[in-house]
Amino acid sequence: MHFADALTKATKEKSPVCVGLDPNLQKLPEGISRDPEGMLIFCKGIIDAVKDSACCVKPQLAYFEILGWEGMKVFWETCEYAKENGLLVIADGKRNDIGSTCDAYAEAYLNEESPIDALTVCPYLGTDGIKPFIERCTANEKGIFVLIKTSNPSSGELQDLPIGDEVVHEHMAQIIEGLAAQHIGPETNLSCIGAVVGATYPEELKYLRTLMSHVPFLIPGFGAQGGGKEDVKHGFVPDGTGAVVNSSRGIIFSSSGTDWQDAAGKAAEKMAKELKSLF
Amino acid sequence: MHFADALTKATKEKSPVCVGLDPNLQKLPEGISRDPEGMLIFCKGIIDAVKDSACCVKPQLAYFEILGWEGMKVFWETCEYAKENGLLVIADGKRNDIGSTCDAYAEAYLNEESPIDALTVCPYLGTDGIKPFIERCTANEKGIFVLIKTSNPSSGELQDLPIGDEVVHEHMAQIIEGLAAQHIGPETNLSCIGAVVGATYPEELKYLRTLMSHVPFLIPGFGAQGGGKEDVKHGFVPDGTGAVVNSSRGIIFSSSGTDWQDAAGKAAEKMAKELKSLF
Repeated sequence: MHFADALTKATKEKSPVCVGLDPNLQKLPEGISRDPEGMLIFCKGIIDAVKDSACCVKPQLAYFEILGWEGMKVFWETCEYAKENGLLVIADGKRNDIGSTCDAYAEAYLNEESPIDALTVCPYLGTDGIKPFIERCTANEKGIFVLIKTSNPSSGELQDLPIGDEVVHEHMAQIIEGLAAQHIGPETNLSCIGAVVGATYPEELKYLRTLMSHVPFLIPGFGAQGGGKEDVKHGFVPDGTGAVVNSSRGIIFSSSGTDWQDAAGKAAEKMAKELKSLF
Repeated sequence: MHFADALTKATKEKSPVCVGLDPNLQKLPEGISRDPEGMLIFCKGIIDAVKDSACCVKPQLAYFEILGWEGMKVFWETCEYAKENGLLVIADGKRNDIGSTCDAYAEAYLNEESPIDALTVCPYLGTDGIKPFIERCTANEKGIFVLIKTSNPSSGELQDLPIGDEVVHEHMAQIIEGLAAQHIGPETNLSCIGAVVGATYPEELKYLRTLMSHVPFLIPGFGAQGGGKEDVKHGFVPDGTGAVVNSSRGIIFSSSGTDWQDAAGKAAEKMAKELKSLF
């Protein structure tokens, strides 16, 4: 199934909740060892806890790469496990390169056999760094989410620079919309080419939705980073689809005690309920 | 030793040649198997061949990630082997994230025990995505190279956008120079914070050198991508230090036959001679 259609279906069946799998070793709860084995147990436990209320998980590659190749083994096992449990998998790697190197990243994460459904991509290099990913999206029913306006305090240093009557992130949004409109799913009006737009800048989020009408949004910054449900509302298209909202710490580290799994499950359910009440 | 001092020393003792380790499976020479084992044999063979004429190698993470965790095992073994053989190691990962995730990438690649000396970093997220790396550079005598003006055809789509009297990459250059000037090596006038500036835009390279007087340059795009020795000349500081020039395909795939190692060694020597003749 086309990625946008699969995402829309999962959003409707469950919720627009994306659970960020950021298995920060220092924060793993009581009773979980701070090594590859512990990391896998933790990630699988979170997946078990959230699989009925979240539509997708977003494993953050940095936390796996910190354990070298053994961490990468856990990363792939985590992705496989999430897939087996009916979750869409968005690998958060913010990868970016050009030519045959970009092609290597695309093949690494979005090949036909990959348990990963979509990858986050950084656009600093221009469309040379995006097109090889799009080829894999089309061939293998995968997706990408391109960074447009990120949730962090310094995001404006580059992304808000004024160019003529607009700012950098608006310009990038129009480039992405132009590419996205060429790759629409047969059952939705949405593309396999998505955008990352932070919940912490609600005015920009609202305006970017008008600039990128075919683009699914991945919205970070909800919960621990400060974004609330009213902030993310305008990231959706009018029927309540077209966006997934990510929470990492706010769900996975809800409790540092032995009840961590139960607490994560409840936090995901609460967030799902909150978001569904918007539409 | 401070990264800029180590880079300067290696440049003077050997040459400013950086050999890009892009072990593209499809291009591995005759007799090398297209699997993790073959990849490691190839990378070690190239290191043996270039270690006397090049100051550093630049393993490109994408080509290792394509083989999953087994590829990452080869990546770390390659970095260790390069280090043991007296080469500086620049991991080309173009990593970028914020907060504790950025910290995880910094710890993953630039920790105290890491065989990696420097990492390439993408600045789309602003200084939030750079400062955690700088902390590791300072604490562990490591370096970073931040993408400023890249060598690819579409680099201008974002990097050349006009903002007032300047363009995006000039603005980013000034931010990086501001950070770099605070982290100068005791023996050189250069920082542990470097920049990636492509050989394929020689005018920009020349101007960016004036904007970033404390910043070591990593210059890709030499050879196969079209940059020649006169193009890269102005990337150096006047005494012929302050830059390393990368060639990947032009060296490592000089021959697809069984003489690949010999051919790579000769190509690296030739390039070293060319660059040294500039000063």
